[in-house]
Amino acid sequence: MPEISKRGEQSPFSPIRKLVDFADEAKAKGVKVYHLNIGQPDFKVPPKIREEIKKISSVDYLPYANSQGEKELLLAWQKYLQDIDIQVETKDIAITTGGSEALIMTMAAICDPGDEIIVFEPYYANYFGFANLVSVEVVPVELDSKNGYHLPSEEIIRSKISSRTRAIFITNPNNPTGTVFTKSEIELIIKIAKENNLFVVSDEAYLGITFDHTTSYSILHIIPETDIKRAIVVDSLSKRLNVCGARIGAIVSKNEEVMSVVNRQAQARLSTSTIEQRIVAPQLKDCLSYIEEIAERYQNRRDAFIGPLEKELNIKIHRPEGAFYTMVELPVKDADEFAKWLLTDFRENGETVMVAPGSGFYATPGRGKNEIRVAYVLKEEDLEKAAILLAKGAKAYQKISR
Amino acid sequence: MPEISKRGEQSPFSPIRKLVDFADEAKAKGVKVYHLNIGQPDFKVPPKIREEIKKISSVDYLPYANSQGEKELLLAWQKYLQDIDIQVETKDIAITTGGSEALIMTMAAICDPGDEIIVFEPYYANYFGFANLVSVEVVPVELDSKNGYHLPSEEIIRSKISSRTRAIFITNPNNPTGTVFTKSEIELIIKIAKENNLFVVSDEAYLGITFDHTTSYSILHIIPETDIKRAIVVDSLSKRLNVCGARIGAIVSKNEEVMSVVNRQAQARLSTSTIEQRIVAPQLKDCLSYIEEIAERYQNRRDAFIGPLEKELNIKIHRPEGAFYTMVELPVKDADEFAKWLLTDFRENGETVMVAPGSGFYATPGRGKNEIRVAYVLKEEDLEKAAILLAKGAKAYQKISR
Repeated sequence: MPEISKRGEQSPFSPIRKLVDFADEAKAKGVKVYHLNIGQPDFKVPPKIREEIKKISSVDYLPYANSQGEKELLLAWQKYLQDIDIQVETKDIAITTGGSEALIMTMAAICDPGDEIIVFEPYYANYFGFANLVSVEVVPVELDSKNGYHLPSEEIIRSKISSRTRAIFITNPNNPTGTVFTKSEIELIIKIAKENNLFVVSDEAYLGITFDHTTSYSILHIIPETDIKRAIVVDSLSKRLNVCGARIGAIVSKNEEVMSVVNRQAQARLSTSTIEQRIVAPQLKDCLSYIEEIAERYQNRRDAFIGPLEKELNIKIHRPEGAFYTMVELPVKDADEFAKWLLTDFRENGETVMVAPGSGFYATPGRGKNEIRVAYVLKEEDLEKAAILLAKGAKAYQKISR
Repeated sequence: MPEISKRGEQSPFSPIRKLVDFADEAKAKGVKVYHLNIGQPDFKVPPKIREEIKKISSVDYLPYANSQGEKELLLAWQKYLQDIDIQVETKDIAITTGGSEALIMTMAAICDPGDEIIVFEPYYANYFGFANLVSVEVVPVELDSKNGYHLPSEEIIRSKISSRTRAIFITNPNNPTGTVFTKSEIELIIKIAKENNLFVVSDEAYLGITFDHTTSYSILHIIPETDIKRAIVVDSLSKRLNVCGARIGAIVSKNEEVMSVVNRQAQARLSTSTIEQRIVAPQLKDCLSYIEEIAERYQNRRDAFIGPLEKELNIKIHRPEGAFYTMVELPVKDADEFAKWLLTDFRENGETVMVAPGSGFYATPGRGKNEIRVAYVLKEEDLEKAAILLAKGAKAYQKISR
């Protein structure tokens, strides 16, 4: 029989989703599972989008959409960017099937097979899956929890750049750390990109979801006009508008060559779902107060989760500045085994908790073994319970895994 | 400034969509454009799907779907396959964002960069775009219009196979020719695949849409159990259920290694749109009579279009056995220029017609220059008008382009 490809063999399991079967088994046995593994907030779809969903209920046709994106949605995206003081034309935007497709298209548009991209690890785990799909090499720059997962020195970043490096990828606000990179950190990345003639790909799915009066900057806020063609923004409405299942993202760039490739790739796959493009546009056009509102709620959730977990385990946890994730170093040796065990064995009053093992967020072998990523996307009382469950689980696992 | 990748440079424009701007300009000036360029039928969404759309109007949440696909849709797909005498388990199915994503995932799962796939040309133009995205080489085997675009001799097919060939791709019923491959043609492909240890990827988006009592076979109807792991079906509901804009497709294979890769790729991109997975499932479960009904209507449309065009131009046109496309050889030298000219210059009572130039459906340079692909997806009276318009356009263009 013919064999799968080498990249197929190396295609990674998602640390966020690989334990889903164990969770389903637990649930089938009546166990309540608190999901901290996935960035799937429990917020309802915003009212304006629900109104639009009602409107489409009388739809007679479901035609392909425009490949670049429906005009109304392109205009709405432009208006959103304008509201946050970024001026682009609709030709600088392409609508994608979530941030996922935006990342795949971007990688292929700027990298040939074997080319390298710099990522800061821990990084969004699926970058590796997308890079694998288009045969691009992920080169990690290590971040340090002691430093709040902020950037290391410029020498360390520079040391990872080779003749095959094509871009520096940043996720800001960050998934999985929740770190919000400062203006001067972004300036440093631009500086290094300029020195080495690289693109900067800025994944801004969580832009605006920040805490404690932190500001999150888009690369397009900071990059000088002379370097604007280096900048490619990857965006998604999943989190900011609570429409994860709509799969609406975008690529935004003033680099016409890049956008030309993206539009050709977009033509090949025809279009993104028509219904979803229609239902999100009106909300996107006027969404800043909504984003502010959910950011406030995530800040409360962060505190509701981290406080009790720190107390129960007597540890110090990175308190993120944005998004709704944090990496947690646990007193366990193998967080992969621990996360699985929580689902298969650990129960406290018929409840358990699901987390994403940390190793999948690192490209460097051996890193992240005692870490988990937590998405604090549940109600505060549930997060408090989940934190205590997790702490109890860690303590119980410590005993049996010695 | 950093440059785009080589594959980015080589990323093709879609012959189906590259003229859209010219069409939009014509329409803005009040010109009526008959769209024969794109397989976007004018049929309404089937009633059962419209009912489901009404049901989702009260949706409160839009969560991510399961990466492999929502259980209800997987079961519906299994039931549909069972109805056409194909027995699979739900683990043999993965839901994708249209046939497009199914093709991209399949190519990456079985090919590394530089590996080759055999396609029969004219072929579905976007295969080249997908292959370009994942750096796979498309190797064409030429089909002959005189032969109704059926397969050439096995020697000709064999002569294109190299040590880097990984798969033979067939589209059956075919886009862009409308040819339905016979049982013995599919057996021949399986035989050659077996001899050379290749996969067979069968794109069956139009399965069941056949005319004049022709039967279309799935590769899974024909491949023997001993070779079943060579077979990968790429499927889509866009055409069979008239939901182009829903972007729902699938990969079906009993090759567990392939499905494991596909599921990992699917995890990385999280999921396909939740709403669309819900709305199509009930119709898919019981859709054979609907497919039969639309097949009958396409047969009438085929005849309504081809008859007048043959008569007006005094030419003979390939009369396809299925799908809703045909390639037409026109008395013009450069169909690319002609198709553009139809939109920019040609008007007859304020109307014109849009077609897809043939060259984009060929990988061999120079082939298809005098051909167009026509999608006969309009009402019969409109197709008749469009055929006459097209004939008049071709005659007028002949005069001015001498």
